[in-house]
Amino acid sequence: MLNALFSPKSIAVIGASNRPLTIGYRIIQNLKEFGYKGAVYPVHPKDLEINGLKAYPSILNVPGAIDLAHIVVKNTMVPVIMEECGQKGVKVVIINTAGFKEIGGEGIELEKKIGELGQKYNLRIFGPNCQGIINTDENVRAYANFTFARPQPGYISILAQSGGVGEVVHQRLVDLGVGTRMYASNGNAADISIPEILNYWAGDEKTKVIILHIESLANPLEFMKAARKVTRHKPILGMKTGRTELGARAVVSHTGSLMKADTAVEAIFDKCGIISFRNQEDLCQAAIAFVSQPVPAGPNVGIITNTGGPGIIATDECIEAGLNLPDLSEETKKNLKANLFAEASVSNPLDVLATAGPKEYAAALEALLKDPNIDSLMVNFITPFFIDCQGVAQEMARLSQNTKKTIVSVIMTDKKNNQPVLQTIKESGIPVYDLPETAALALSALVKYGEYQKRPAEKPPVFPDVDKAAVQQIINEAKKSNREILSAEEVFKLLNAYKIPLVKSVFIPVPISSGKDASDIQTVAKKVGYPVVLKLDSPEVIHKTEQGGVILGIENEKQLKNEFKIFRKKFIGKNAKFMVQSYLSGGQEVIIGASAVPDLGHLILFGLGGIFVEVLNDVAFRVAPLTEHEARGMIQSIKGYRILKGTRGQPGVELNKLTEIVLRLSQLVTDHPRIKELDLNPVMAGAEYALVVDARIKLRPSKNFLTVSS
Amino acid sequence: MLNALFSPKSIAVIGASNRPLTIGYRIIQNLKEFGYKGAVYPVHPKDLEINGLKAYPSILNVPGAIDLAHIVVKNTMVPVIMEECGQKGVKVVIINTAGFKEIGGEGIELEKKIGELGQKYNLRIFGPNCQGIINTDENVRAYANFTFARPQPGYISILAQSGGVGEVVHQRLVDLGVGTRMYASNGNAADISIPEILNYWAGDEKTKVIILHIESLANPLEFMKAARKVTRHKPILGMKTGRTELGARAVVSHTGSLMKADTAVEAIFDKCGIISFRNQEDLCQAAIAFVSQPVPAGPNVGIITNTGGPGIIATDECIEAGLNLPDLSEETKKNLKANLFAEASVSNPLDVLATAGPKEYAAALEALLKDPNIDSLMVNFITPFFIDCQGVAQEMARLSQNTKKTIVSVIMTDKKNNQPVLQTIKESGIPVYDLPETAALALSALVKYGEYQKRPAEKPPVFPDVDKAAVQQIINEAKKSNREILSAEEVFKLLNAYKIPLVKSVFIPVPISSGKDASDIQTVAKKVGYPVVLKLDSPEVIHKTEQGGVILGIENEKQLKNEFKIFRKKFIGKNAKFMVQSYLSGGQEVIIGASAVPDLGHLILFGLGGIFVEVLNDVAFRVAPLTEHEARGMIQSIKGYRILKGTRGQPGVELNKLTEIVLRLSQLVTDHPRIKELDLNPVMAGAEYALVVDARIKLRPSKNFLTVSS
Repeated sequence: MLNALFSPKSIAVIGASNRPLTIGYRIIQNLKEFGYKGAVYPVHPKDLEINGLKAYPSILNVPGAIDLAHIVVKNTMVPVIMEECGQKGVKVVIINTAGFKEIGGEGIELEKKIGELGQKYNLRIFGPNCQGIINTDENVRAYANFTFARPQPGYISILAQSGGVGEVVHQRLVDLGVGTRMYASNGNAADISIPEILNYWAGDEKTKVIILHIESLANPLEFMKAARKVTRHKPILGMKTGRTELGARAVVSHTGSLMKADTAVEAIFDKCGIISFRNQEDLCQAAIAFVSQPVPAGPNVGIITNTGGPGIIATDECIEAGLNLPDLSEETKKNLKANLFAEASVSNPLDVLATAGPKEYAAALEALLKDPNIDSLMVNFITPFFIDCQGVAQEMARLSQNTKKTIVSVIMTDKKNNQPVLQTIKESGIPVYDLPETAALALSALVKYGEYQKRPAEKPPVFPDVDKAAVQQIINEAKKSNREILSAEEVFKLLNAYKIPLVKSVFIPVPISSGKDASDIQTVAKKVGYPVVLKLDSPEVIHKTEQGGVILGIENEKQLKNEFKIFRKKFIGKNAKFMVQSYLSGGQEVIIGASAVPDLGHLILFGLGGIFVEVLNDVAFRVAPLTEHEARGMIQSIKGYRILKGTRGQPGVELNKLTEIVLRLSQLVTDHPRIKELDLNPVMAGAEYALVVDARIKLRPSKNFLTVSS
Repeated sequence: MLNALFSPKSIAVIGASNRPLTIGYRIIQNLKEFGYKGAVYPVHPKDLEINGLKAYPSILNVPGAIDLAHIVVKNTMVPVIMEECGQKGVKVVIINTAGFKEIGGEGIELEKKIGELGQKYNLRIFGPNCQGIINTDENVRAYANFTFARPQPGYISILAQSGGVGEVVHQRLVDLGVGTRMYASNGNAADISIPEILNYWAGDEKTKVIILHIESLANPLEFMKAARKVTRHKPILGMKTGRTELGARAVVSHTGSLMKADTAVEAIFDKCGIISFRNQEDLCQAAIAFVSQPVPAGPNVGIITNTGGPGIIATDECIEAGLNLPDLSEETKKNLKANLFAEASVSNPLDVLATAGPKEYAAALEALLKDPNIDSLMVNFITPFFIDCQGVAQEMARLSQNTKKTIVSVIMTDKKNNQPVLQTIKESGIPVYDLPETAALALSALVKYGEYQKRPAEKPPVFPDVDKAAVQQIINEAKKSNREILSAEEVFKLLNAYKIPLVKSVFIPVPISSGKDASDIQTVAKKVGYPVVLKLDSPEVIHKTEQGGVILGIENEKQLKNEFKIFRKKFIGKNAKFMVQSYLSGGQEVIIGASAVPDLGHLILFGLGGIFVEVLNDVAFRVAPLTEHEARGMIQSIKGYRILKGTRGQPGVELNKLTEIVLRLSQLVTDHPRIKELDLNPVMAGAEYALVVDARIKLRPSKNFLTVSS
C-alpha cells in the first residue's frame, strides 16, 4: 500500500537547504505553505535550522519515525543516503535527483543499485528524476513536490508520466477553479509504477476520476490488468502524447506499416475502457463533469436554451460528438405547451425564450427529466438582465437533486456581476461551462464511459477445433532452417490448422526447375476449375503482385500454358514454387492482420483493402486476444463499414464469417507468440462467403535466427 | 458612412424608462456606466427625469441635434416614432423592438413600412429586433446596447448575426482579458447590412481583426464583394452555425445531395479568404494572435521549450494543424551549441532544458529568428522557481521588437504569483497562451490567412471557343416543351458546345418502337468500335444504371443483339432512345458537378467517384466562376487526391485535363444561370485523358414550367 507515500505522517528532506532557489528549500517551503499536517525534518550536514525548522546532520539523528524521505542530494550520493534511510526504517523515498537511467551509462548502473537497496531494506522508491506527490486531503495536506500549482481539495487525481504535462494540466484545473485530490509524477519509475498508483487510487474514495498522461508504457500487460479493474467503477481519462509517426520502419507487412506511434497505446486505452483525449483542455473540462454527474443511460440528449444562436451551436456540437437529439415524448410536449410561453419552440432543442424565468426553466427541466426519451440534459442559460437569474439557478439546483439523469449547464454571463448564479449551480453539482461546445464534449465523454461500462463481461472465445500442434510444427521447422518468412504453402497449412477459410488453392510441390511442373500445373488447374489464378510461392519474393508473381483470371489451358512459360523464365533460380487458386471476381477486399508488440502480445488489424488502406488509412487496431464484442466493434468502427453493410443497392457481406476469421486469427497469434507479423490480404468477402486469398507470415527472430530475406 | 451609428455625438432613447428591468432603462444605464462621451436624451411621455437625466416628452422636444436614436417602444408604435425621428433629422435609429419580419404576417408589413419611412427621411435603420452596437473608443464609449459584456478597449471587432452568439464570444474575450473595438448585432437587418458594416470596419484603423458570425447570408453576392475587399488587408475570422444537415431534399443529382446546410457558406468563406472556425473558443483564441502578430511568410514553425512533455504536445499539434517543423540550419545549430547548455537538444523542437534562463532563452530566440528555415516561433516556457523568469520574459519582449517573424508563446505558470511575467510578454505584443494546443491553432490560422493573401489575383478564365448560342437554343427548346430534364443527346450536344471532352458516343435518333433501331444500333457499334456500352436515353428514367439501362463491355455483335432484345422489352413505351459509347476500362472515376444556389450563382463540386462520394463524402465545393488557382486547389483538397496523383505504383491521371473540364463547366453554368443542377458523372480520367462518360442536367423551373419527371 502506498499510504506512506500519499499520506505520510512525517517527511524528511535530505539535502534541505536555506538557499531559496534550490529544490531542498522549495520542498520544505511548499510543505509549510500548503499546511502539511505531519512533522517535517530537514537534513543538512551543517546547518542547525532550515527555513525556521530544526535540522539534523543525518536522517539517523532524527528522533521520530519517518514515513517518507525526499532525497535531493547529488546522484552519486543517493546510494549512501538510501542505506541510511534503510537503517532508519523509512518506508518510502521520493528521489527528486536526476542523473539516473535517463542519462544512460553509469546512470543505469546507479538506478540498478538504488533498486537493490530498496529491496534490501524494504524501502519503496518513487522516482528517481521526478517531481513527487501532492495530497490535498484536509488531514494530510502533503505538497511533497517542488512544482507551482496550488490546488484546492477536490476529487480529480492526476497521474502524469511527463512532469511538465502533469503540471500544466494541474495548473489548468486550478485556473478553472476546480479542486484536485492527489497528484503524482513518478519520473523514471524505478519501483513504484503507474499501475500500482492506479490500484491505490482505485481504493481512494475521494478520487472520483483519474487523469492519466502517458508517453509510453513500461509494462503494458500489468498496466492493462490494473486499468481494466479500475475503469469498472472509476473513470480514467487518458492522454497519450507523441503521436507523430516514427521514422520509416523495415516491415514486411501492411499491418506493421499501418501502425503509428500511438496505435498500441490507443488500442490499450480502448481495451481498458480508458477515455482517450488528444487535447489537455478537453481532458480537464471533461474531468469536471465526471466529478459530480452520473453516467448517462444512453446517448439521448435534451437541450434547453433561452437563446437561439447558442442553441444551434449546442445542437451542432452534440450531433457531431455522436450524441442523439431525440424527439420529445407527446406527454412532454403537452406538458411544456401548458407551462411555457406560447411562442416557445416545443421541440428538441427546446427554446424557452429569453423571457423565461424560474417558473419556465423549472417546467422545462422537470418535463425533460421525466421524459423517457431523454438520458441527459444540457441546460443553456444566457442571463438576461430582466430575469430573476438567481431564481433560475435555484430551480436548476433544486431539480438536479432528485434525478438520476445527467445534467450539464452552459451559463453565459458576466462572471463578475453574476457570481452567485454560478455558485448556486456549481454547488448543486451541475458542471458549469462557458460554451455549449465544451458542454457537448463533456457529455460525450460521459456517454462514452457509459458505453465502456456496458460492454459485456465476456471472455475471448476459444475455438476447440484448431490444431495447435500442427502450427507449432510449421514454426519449428522454419526455425530449424533459420527462416523468418514462411512459404505460401506453410502459411496456408497454418491457416488451415486454425480453420481460417481459404479460397480453393493447390500447391505444386515441385520447384520450377524440375521439368515436371508444367504438366502438373495443368492437371491442378483443371481440378480447381477455370478461371484460375497462377501465383508464385518464393521466400525470396515478398511483394509478389508488384513483381508480376500473380496472374489473375486465367480462363483456359492455353492461356495457362503461355503464362507459365513467362513465369518460369522470370522466376527460375528464385527457389520458386507455384500455386493455382480458384479466381474470385466480385466481393469486397478486406485486410485482416496481426503485429507483435513487445511486452504486450499482438495488435489485430482490420480494414478494407485497396485504397481504403493505402490512401485513407481507414483501419482499426485492437489488442489480442479479442472478445466477440471487440471483434464486431472493430469491424464497425472503420469508415468503410457502410460498404460492408451494403450501400446504394450493393449487397453487404457476410459479417459473421468475417468476425470469425478475426477471432480465429486472434486465437492463432495468441497461441503462437513467435508470429511477428501476419497479413491476411486480401480476404475476399461476399454476401455468403469470406475467404482468404493471400497471406504472409513473418516470425520473430530468435538469437539463432538469421534473416533470410526481408 | 456609419459614423452616426458607431460614433454618435448624441443618443436619444425613445421608450426610456425608470423601471430597472426594462430595456429602456438598461440602455441608459449602460451608456452611463460605460462613460459615453456624448449627450443622452431620454424620451418618455410623462416622466420628467429618467435615471437622473432630463427626459423629453417627444424627440421633437429635444433641444440639440441627434445622431442616433434607440427605439424601444411597442412594435406597432414604431412607425409613428420613425416619422418623428425623420422630422427631427435623426441620422440613424437602432430599433431594439421585436415583432417584425421574424413573426411573419403583419410583422412583415410593419418592417416594410419602417423601411419606406427610412428612405423617405434618409434615416438609416439598424435592426429591428436587435441588440445594438458598442464602440470602446476612448472618445466615444458608446454602449448603445442592452447586453452584459463589459469590454476593455482593444482591436477586435465583432459582427454577429445571432445576438446570443455575439454576446457569448464578446464575454469570452472579456474573460480572456482581451480588449475589443466595436460590436454589432443587427437583428433583422432591414437596412444596415453585414456587408455595409464590414466595409465600414475596413476603414477603421483600430479594428485589426473582425470576428464574424453567420447563420445565413441574405445577399451572398453583396457579401462576397465586401468581404473579399476587406480580407485583402484585414483578417476576418468567420463562424457559420447550423451545420446539421437539412432534411432530405428532392434532388435529381449527386451534386445536390452532397451539399450540406453549410456547404455554400463554407465555399463563400473560402472564396473570400475568410478563415473559418467551428468553435467559439478557437475563434477567440486565434483572434488574439491576429491583433499583434504579423502574418508568417510560410508554414515553417520553430518550437522552443524548456520541458519535454509540453514540447511533444506542441510538436504533435503543429504537425496535425498542417504546419511544418523544418530542420534548423547548420549555422543555427552551431550557434545554439555554443550558447546553450551542453545537454540541450539542438533540433526542432529545441529543448533548452529546465535550467535555461534569460541568456539561454535569448540565444534560442535570436538564433531561430535569424534562421532562414523558420517563419514563425512558438516559445514554450514553464516557469521553474529557480530561474529568473521575469528575465526570460524581458528577453522575449526585447527580441520580439526587432523581428518581422511571428511569435506566439505558451507560458505555463501560477498566474497569481507570476502576473508580472505574463504582463511583460503580453505588453510586448506576443500572445500568451495557456496550452501549446491553443498556440498551434492560432499559428495555423495566421498561416492560413497568409496563404489566402498569397493567392494570385487572377480572374476566372474565359474560353473563347465555346458556342454560347447553341446551349441557349437547347435550353430554350426544353423550355418550350416544358421539360426540366434534358435528354442525354441534348446534354452531350450542350457539353460539346463548351468543348467539354466526351467519350466517343453515337445516338440512335429513332425511338425504340420504330423497328429500324436494331440494325441502326449494330451499324453504330461497328463505327464506335467494340467493346461498347449500350445506354438508355429516356427522360422518364433518371437513375438508369440502377434500372438496368446501362450495359457495359459488350464485346461483339452477337452480344449486342441479345442485350438489345432485353432492352427493348424493358423500356418500350418509356419514350426511350439509345446511345452506343466506346467502353473505357481502367482509369479513375471522377465526379464534377454544379448546383445552383439562390442569390449566389452556382457551386462547383469535385470528387472521386464511387465509394469516395457515396460512402466517404470526399468532395470539395467552390463558388463559380472559378479561377484556375481555385480549380486546382479544389482538386488538391480532397482526400483522394493521392490517387489522382498516383500512388503505390499506380500511375496518376491527367490533372491539367481535369482542371480544364472544371473550368469549362464553371464557365458553362455561369453563362447559363438556367442550369439548376449538372452532373458529369462519371468523368473517366487516365494518364493521358479525361473524358465525360455520362452527364445529367436539370434546368430551373420557371413559372410556366411543369415538372415532367424528377
